[in-house]
Amino acid sequence: MPDQPATPLLDRISRPADLHGLTDSQLVQLSREVREETISAVSVTGGHLGAGLGVVELTVALHAVFDTPRDKIVWDVSHQCYPHKILTERRDRIRTLRQKDGLSGFTKRSESPYDPFGAAHSSTSISAALGFAVARDLGGNVPEGLGDAIAVIGDGAMSAGMAYEAMNNAGHLKKRLIVILNDNEMSIAPPVGAMSSYLSRLYAEEPFQDFKAAAKGAVSLLPYPFREGAKRAKDILKGMAVGGTLFEQLGFSYLGPIDGHDMNQLLPVLRTVKARATGPILIHVLTKKGKGYGPAENARDKGHGVSKFNVLTGEQKKSPSNAPSYTAVFAESLVQEAADDDRICAVTAAMPDGTGLNLFAERYPSRCFDVGIAEQHGVTFSAGMAAGGLKPFCAMYSTFLQRGYDQVVHDVAIQRLPVRFAIDRAGLVGADGATHAGAFDVAYLANLPGFVVMAAADEAELKHMVATAAGYDDGPIAFRFPRGEGKGVEMPERGTPLEIGKGRIIRTGSRVALLSFGTRLAEVEKASEALAAKGITPTIADARFAKPLDRDLILSLAEDHEALITIEEGAVGGFGSHVAQLLADEGVFDRGLKYRSMVLPDIFIDQASPADMYAVAGMNAGDIEAKVLDVLAIASLGAQRA
Amino acid sequence: MPDQPATPLLDRISRPADLHGLTDSQLVQLSREVREETISAVSVTGGHLGAGLGVVELTVALHAVFDTPRDKIVWDVSHQCYPHKILTERRDRIRTLRQKDGLSGFTKRSESPYDPFGAAHSSTSISAALGFAVARDLGGNVPEGLGDAIAVIGDGAMSAGMAYEAMNNAGHLKKRLIVILNDNEMSIAPPVGAMSSYLSRLYAEEPFQDFKAAAKGAVSLLPYPFREGAKRAKDILKGMAVGGTLFEQLGFSYLGPIDGHDMNQLLPVLRTVKARATGPILIHVLTKKGKGYGPAENARDKGHGVSKFNVLTGEQKKSPSNAPSYTAVFAESLVQEAADDDRICAVTAAMPDGTGLNLFAERYPSRCFDVGIAEQHGVTFSAGMAAGGLKPFCAMYSTFLQRGYDQVVHDVAIQRLPVRFAIDRAGLVGADGATHAGAFDVAYLANLPGFVVMAAADEAELKHMVATAAGYDDGPIAFRFPRGEGKGVEMPERGTPLEIGKGRIIRTGSRVALLSFGTRLAEVEKASEALAAKGITPTIADARFAKPLDRDLILSLAEDHEALITIEEGAVGGFGSHVAQLLADEGVFDRGLKYRSMVLPDIFIDQASPADMYAVAGMNAGDIEAKVLDVLAIASLGAQRA
Repeated sequence: MPDQPATPLLDRISRPADLHGLTDSQLVQLSREVREETISAVSVTGGHLGAGLGVVELTVALHAVFDTPRDKIVWDVSHQCYPHKILTERRDRIRTLRQKDGLSGFTKRSESPYDPFGAAHSSTSISAALGFAVARDLGGNVPEGLGDAIAVIGDGAMSAGMAYEAMNNAGHLKKRLIVILNDNEMSIAPPVGAMSSYLSRLYAEEPFQDFKAAAKGAVSLLPYPFREGAKRAKDILKGMAVGGTLFEQLGFSYLGPIDGHDMNQLLPVLRTVKARATGPILIHVLTKKGKGYGPAENARDKGHGVSKFNVLTGEQKKSPSNAPSYTAVFAESLVQEAADDDRICAVTAAMPDGTGLNLFAERYPSRCFDVGIAEQHGVTFSAGMAAGGLKPFCAMYSTFLQRGYDQVVHDVAIQRLPVRFAIDRAGLVGADGATHAGAFDVAYLANLPGFVVMAAADEAELKHMVATAAGYDDGPIAFRFPRGEGKGVEMPERGTPLEIGKGRIIRTGSRVALLSFGTRLAEVEKASEALAAKGITPTIADARFAKPLDRDLILSLAEDHEALITIEEGAVGGFGSHVAQLLADEGVFDRGLKYRSMVLPDIFIDQASPADMYAVAGMNAGDIEAKVLDVLAIASLGAQRA
Repeated sequence: MPDQPATPLLDRISRPADLHGLTDSQLVQLSREVREETISAVSVTGGHLGAGLGVVELTVALHAVFDTPRDKIVWDVSHQCYPHKILTERRDRIRTLRQKDGLSGFTKRSESPYDPFGAAHSSTSISAALGFAVARDLGGNVPEGLGDAIAVIGDGAMSAGMAYEAMNNAGHLKKRLIVILNDNEMSIAPPVGAMSSYLSRLYAEEPFQDFKAAAKGAVSLLPYPFREGAKRAKDILKGMAVGGTLFEQLGFSYLGPIDGHDMNQLLPVLRTVKARATGPILIHVLTKKGKGYGPAENARDKGHGVSKFNVLTGEQKKSPSNAPSYTAVFAESLVQEAADDDRICAVTAAMPDGTGLNLFAERYPSRCFDVGIAEQHGVTFSAGMAAGGLKPFCAMYSTFLQRGYDQVVHDVAIQRLPVRFAIDRAGLVGADGATHAGAFDVAYLANLPGFVVMAAADEAELKHMVATAAGYDDGPIAFRFPRGEGKGVEMPERGTPLEIGKGRIIRTGSRVALLSFGTRLAEVEKASEALAAKGITPTIADARFAKPLDRDLILSLAEDHEALITIEEGAVGGFGSHVAQLLADEGVFDRGLKYRSMVLPDIFIDQASPADMYAVAGMNAGDIEAKVLDVLAIASLGAQRA
């Protein structure tokens, strides 16, 4: 394979245990080869590049010093796991990353015993690792055995309260637990918050202290002789700031900061910790995201997420886009609304680019708040702003809003505060897989009293929904929209507020009514075209609102048709369930209405192309057509079942 | 009113602004009177006593120094708000606390402009106060105006990640914000975690430092002259530890600790902060929960939650209990199971008493983990233990589990880890009102692939469900049960594992099938007795499982009856919605099945007695009877509609 780098040493590694026999200088060479292999693989698959490149040496050093899979390495977020996968018996499949039936882009328990705990959302690793530490000490039993518990967590992930909760608990329990703080001053976006400033100060203000002072702190657990020689260890320790009092106050021993690209620092420190640690210890490692690959190092996002690319030039092969993304439409619409209303402000939880709010922040920097990876705070902070008379738009992915669910219930819904939730990545998301899918938001929001829940059928509808939310002051309001490009519909100059709780008829037909909630409307229309050829012309409606329901519309659809089918890109419990509740309450079922509800299936769908995922989900035009034929008891020959 | 204390000064106070004209010594006297009034009121109503008594002086001092409702005091959890309510134009209704149509036991926006932000769950106050601070600075507009933003938060609440997220963000934004850490070394239970140890060290290890060192820190913002005189201020400052480096590292100025029962410390410090604070400042106040009332001070829980009591003796008027509480049955059953299986362990988030796990902790201290108010961590920590081969029971109230929802989805469900969720307080809860109701858990859990979701119809069923969960290793499993006493049914010696996904027929009848999920079964049975008098004998079934559904049972009930009615103590989107989805998928509606789903109404129900709440919810036997008569189109004369 001409495109692949020469990796003579890596080629001899078939499992992590093989690293135990290598010399330190061989481990340095191995790191070089793992880096090249990572770049090569991602150039073919696309995916998360910068994070993995930043931890190549750390990954090699961890596997060289620790004994996986008995020792448990829990990678936080785990988009940095590609080097780990290369070393843990998955190199043969590394060029299937994020593809259908290929390797996941994240750690995954079902994929390998070297992945003791899956992740994709941030800041879970310390909690999970503490669970392994407790299981080890209480006689838990797993096939691989239970050794050390090691969490590798980024500085950005440290802004999440969950990481603090875990540190707080670990400091109290005092069990042997190793937390590696991978500090690259850069999560997905530059990190924000006081913790980030604190970490910078740790090595900026007092990078050197004399050894005596250092030894007072955590370093006292580092004895002589090191396997690699006392002198080097002493030199390293001299360079340590040992200023991590925040961590020490939470009950952790603190070691660092050390250079995470220097094996001569990583190996002796990890070996000593392995040999001597007793309670919880935090090792502060400085790394560079994108390290060792120029195009990544030089990119604004340090090569966070990339398309397939040319290894030599770094040029990414982006497919030409036909229509603006939903994210961009949301962001531009919000900027427009904000121009007319200076009470509009915006909140993101460490995703300014992903949510499009970077655009808003450029125009209205004082009105845009990146709270860090802190959805709980972000939601209640928004509620506080709403109580203070502002109009906050809280922009989060559907799956991440789950992090702030109690705050949505307790601080927003119960108080009926007008927080606007812009819910991006609603529905299936493609290569990021099940952990990033937004399947549950309609179910978990639409049963909250007083909530308004909308879904946009296309990008023009999204623009109207932003305007609707901006103008709505009576309580919480949410609008969901999917990942990816819009449909290329004609865009209005400005959004026009929709009437709350009113859907729209797209086309009047007969026998069967197709009631869509969200972007599956396009597939409904396609299905209808196919059905027309069979002499069936369904009525098509766009519900727009899952709450409040358009009772008149739904009841008249039920009245006027033999069958009513709802379609939504969400799990059971959402729009269709609310429609069913209405129909039941009104006694409509008593008359024999043929009711069906098309929802996402009761499985977590693995990564694949969006088209493949919709096929698995049974959400395509062919599936809708088949459902119509089935419910009308017409032989479905010729219907394309996915 | 002979039972009420003499409160001559308090009687002259009609609004907080009246405090501005009082001398410091009058404020001391006023505190005494507010304390007596608080004790007197709670002796009549029951409720949260200890927390309010601990902040009497702080409450008086805050209202004396600050200008409410323009200045916003956000009480964390807010069960300590009774003295605040006495001072803020609600004294005339203070003896209606927690009663139907009376004052809420918590702060509530709809109740008073002096309650700028409601609460009941912990650790939200800093986020909300920061929202007010931002709104003030960005020109937010509310009728009362926007002045200072003040969060009053307990040390226990500081263990929650949300508080850390908010501090982290506030330290970054640098807006004027006042956080008062009300440190009573006691939340509901004694606080746990490293933060708690840290706070203790702040005043235990180095209570005195010389003034020069103190002035280096936050104290530099305290200038002369104080309104009350420079000397006293200097004396106070001398006594301050100014050791709050953890808070300083997060970007806060730190002041304290000061004695929260000493007006001579509270008033000058608050006045100076009011006059001079610029950025975020944390004032560390030491208080005693239950202060000033012997029976509370001497109680193990410091009078946290009490029934009506005799003021002189402190003796509480507890109604005799007829049956064990569900909580006790859960706890005892778990202890039994744990005796046979040493892999069973338990997790609580700061609620060992509320969940009954104190019993488990006594028997198996090394296997019981109180993680603090940290549901996010608690869930993923449980997932880690499950991945390590243990059998964790994660015991949380339904409403608090919302705090860990993303962790339930991402760490437990997607990985299909066998974490056992014991969900207490499912359904309506009485005097604690809407914030503590457990209405959404079935909806937010039962649509997660691979989850098993059960509800206990009575306390014997609960015992079986604990055994079922203990024996189930294939994935996550949850069982919900309500607040309060069981039904007094005969209890088995040991629980017997139930067959997963199988319900049971309680009684076979005709025409209508009543399919209950959970404890409403008793009302269903009562309704059936009343219906029998009208010649109708419904079939009664207990679903036991919302997931997986008992397909055979449900489809045969639908097949054999004219009507099918589901009943559950939860919001739409839960059990009934899953049943409707099954019926739709199977084409059962096509035949004209009269289907109804009785769920909690689409409102947040205010505090009242459980009986009154069920009446509001339409969940009583009379409601069920009326529903049956209605669906069978029988004139419902004589049916008791609630």
